[in-house]
Amino acid sequence: MAQAKGFAAQSATSPLAPFNFERRALRADDVAIEIDYCGVCHSDIHTAENDWGGSVYPVVPGHEIIGHVTAVGSDVSRFKVGDIVGVGCLVDSCKHCSACDDGLEQYCLNGFVGTYNGQDKIDGTITYGGYSDSIVVHERFVLSIPEALDPASAAPILCAGITTYSPLKHFGVKAGDKVGVLGMGGLGHMGVKFAKAMGAEVTIFTRSESKVAEAKKQGADHVVISTDPEQMAAVAGTFNYLLDTIPVQHDLNPYLNCLKYDGVHILVGLIEPMDPPVHAANLVLKRRVIAGSLIGGLPETQEVLDFCAEHGITCDVEMLAMQDINQAYERMKKGDVKYRFVIDMASLKNA
Amino acid sequence: MAQAKGFAAQSATSPLAPFNFERRALRADDVAIEIDYCGVCHSDIHTAENDWGGSVYPVVPGHEIIGHVTAVGSDVSRFKVGDIVGVGCLVDSCKHCSACDDGLEQYCLNGFVGTYNGQDKIDGTITYGGYSDSIVVHERFVLSIPEALDPASAAPILCAGITTYSPLKHFGVKAGDKVGVLGMGGLGHMGVKFAKAMGAEVTIFTRSESKVAEAKKQGADHVVISTDPEQMAAVAGTFNYLLDTIPVQHDLNPYLNCLKYDGVHILVGLIEPMDPPVHAANLVLKRRVIAGSLIGGLPETQEVLDFCAEHGITCDVEMLAMQDINQAYERMKKGDVKYRFVIDMASLKNA
Repeated sequence: MAQAKGFAAQSATSPLAPFNFERRALRADDVAIEIDYCGVCHSDIHTAENDWGGSVYPVVPGHEIIGHVTAVGSDVSRFKVGDIVGVGCLVDSCKHCSACDDGLEQYCLNGFVGTYNGQDKIDGTITYGGYSDSIVVHERFVLSIPEALDPASAAPILCAGITTYSPLKHFGVKAGDKVGVLGMGGLGHMGVKFAKAMGAEVTIFTRSESKVAEAKKQGADHVVISTDPEQMAAVAGTFNYLLDTIPVQHDLNPYLNCLKYDGVHILVGLIEPMDPPVHAANLVLKRRVIAGSLIGGLPETQEVLDFCAEHGITCDVEMLAMQDINQAYERMKKGDVKYRFVIDMASLKNA
Repeated sequence: MAQAKGFAAQSATSPLAPFNFERRALRADDVAIEIDYCGVCHSDIHTAENDWGGSVYPVVPGHEIIGHVTAVGSDVSRFKVGDIVGVGCLVDSCKHCSACDDGLEQYCLNGFVGTYNGQDKIDGTITYGGYSDSIVVHERFVLSIPEALDPASAAPILCAGITTYSPLKHFGVKAGDKVGVLGMGGLGHMGVKFAKAMGAEVTIFTRSESKVAEAKKQGADHVVISTDPEQMAAVAGTFNYLLDTIPVQHDLNPYLNCLKYDGVHILVGLIEPMDPPVHAANLVLKRRVIAGSLIGGLPETQEVLDFCAEHGITCDVEMLAMQDINQAYERMKKGDVKYRFVIDMASLKNA
């Protein structure tokens, strides 16, 4: 066991505050990591505040972790002390079901273990995430960070990045396809970069005229104001894919109408009922598809890190001191961040 | 122009009754067909009774047409007098858009022309369907009926058959897959036959214990009583595909939960809002897909006819005299037909 410092929520309503705890002793296949950076995901807020239920306090959030290896267990072969590594949303799974065999640990038939608020499969303890100075993780769930990537801005690739890359890849986005991106936050802005790198013609859908310049700056070829019926009608039936990162309930029907036949509407942000209901005719009459997708497995997470290094893709980040996390949450709730906060964990030493 | 006899609804509330009209004069690329059999589809009732709006009276329903060629236009190359042929749900499309170029006339970007209650692209007249002694159709929309098929029981392949075959094929059902079929009517019973012929392990979902024997008789390997939570829980996460032929609103969520990760829920019967709303988590957490599919294009409709001939697949039919159509509609509304009525058009001569 090793002493660890972190920030935790002690209840659904308390602000995050310093929290001392113990990290588990190194198992044979474990990697010990000193954390340098941790991205801040909306899921962190939802779990800290128990929006989805099931939060077990204290909650130490954080699943966009970049650090360096400080020790490895006796059976670890892929990493050595000093390596720059990452840990994303998963720290364990059963490792022997068909999903795990396919490198789809996020769909593990026996349940994956989340990086925080998960339950360790061996000792039953609740997992603590990356708002801390260190973490101990099974080597299968540790990623190599390519040298070409800036470590701080690479952090959000581990959640926001893989969440958008994986479905674009899985559902077959290719050069020349028309891809629409709904929502321009941490996920959406990464989706634009990936779709562009895959050769697609990318349109950002936004509710507000005020975001057009920013959307263009993000690399979008076109912008559609989704609240303008004329603009929506002008693009009816033209998209091959819509990457929907909107995290709150919204009417999918006007967007589905923008898809060509065989078009795919990919949900990565919504985990609530699709209300107002989707009209089945919007699918049946044009063989359209609504799909969901959850982060990505370990092989694909390594793939997206390598893809980012190769294509010079980074997340747009705003650096944050650990002590300012509660203000950061307030700003995120208002959508006031371009596009991801990343905690510089050096700040924790002074906390 | 040629005199034709048929049965038509003159209003949303009137019963179908004898109706004399004129079929168009043969165009250069037209095939004239004397109709021998016509299947009775639920869409016939919906259009006759204006359930979907847009019905233009008189309505002569019928789009599962089998007959023989009586004349061909000067440019027709694929058919000759005497050939046994079929006409399904479509009689025209633009024939030059990307969908038509791909043989997906049902998704024609400029709109297909339905076999009845459609509008002819050349003279603007409303199309009259197969409840009649003859029809005149562009040769592209005429199918060859393989000799090995019994013409009467082949009729429903042209709608019920292609509607279920097309998505099973398109979404990739293969040997060893687990396929669930929801609804055991004209579409569902064909879906079971196709999924079995593709090598899948097939489960019929039914609400009633009383249908178990019939489901097994239809070739299902297993039956799940969908109203029994224990039976539903026992198959959670196990299906690769669900072919959903239920034509009325129903809760998709319990069925989605039966799909494995990457499972596909295919809608072919529902054309109303998906209410109660689908919970997005049921898609996102397992990368599941909800897809819709509409009949099939002409090449695939020929393919399913050939597939049926090769695999000895026929539709279970109950033969009907044209004069009994109104009673047949009443029985269909109660689900009292195993599994498709087919009108023997010889009866029309005496009507």
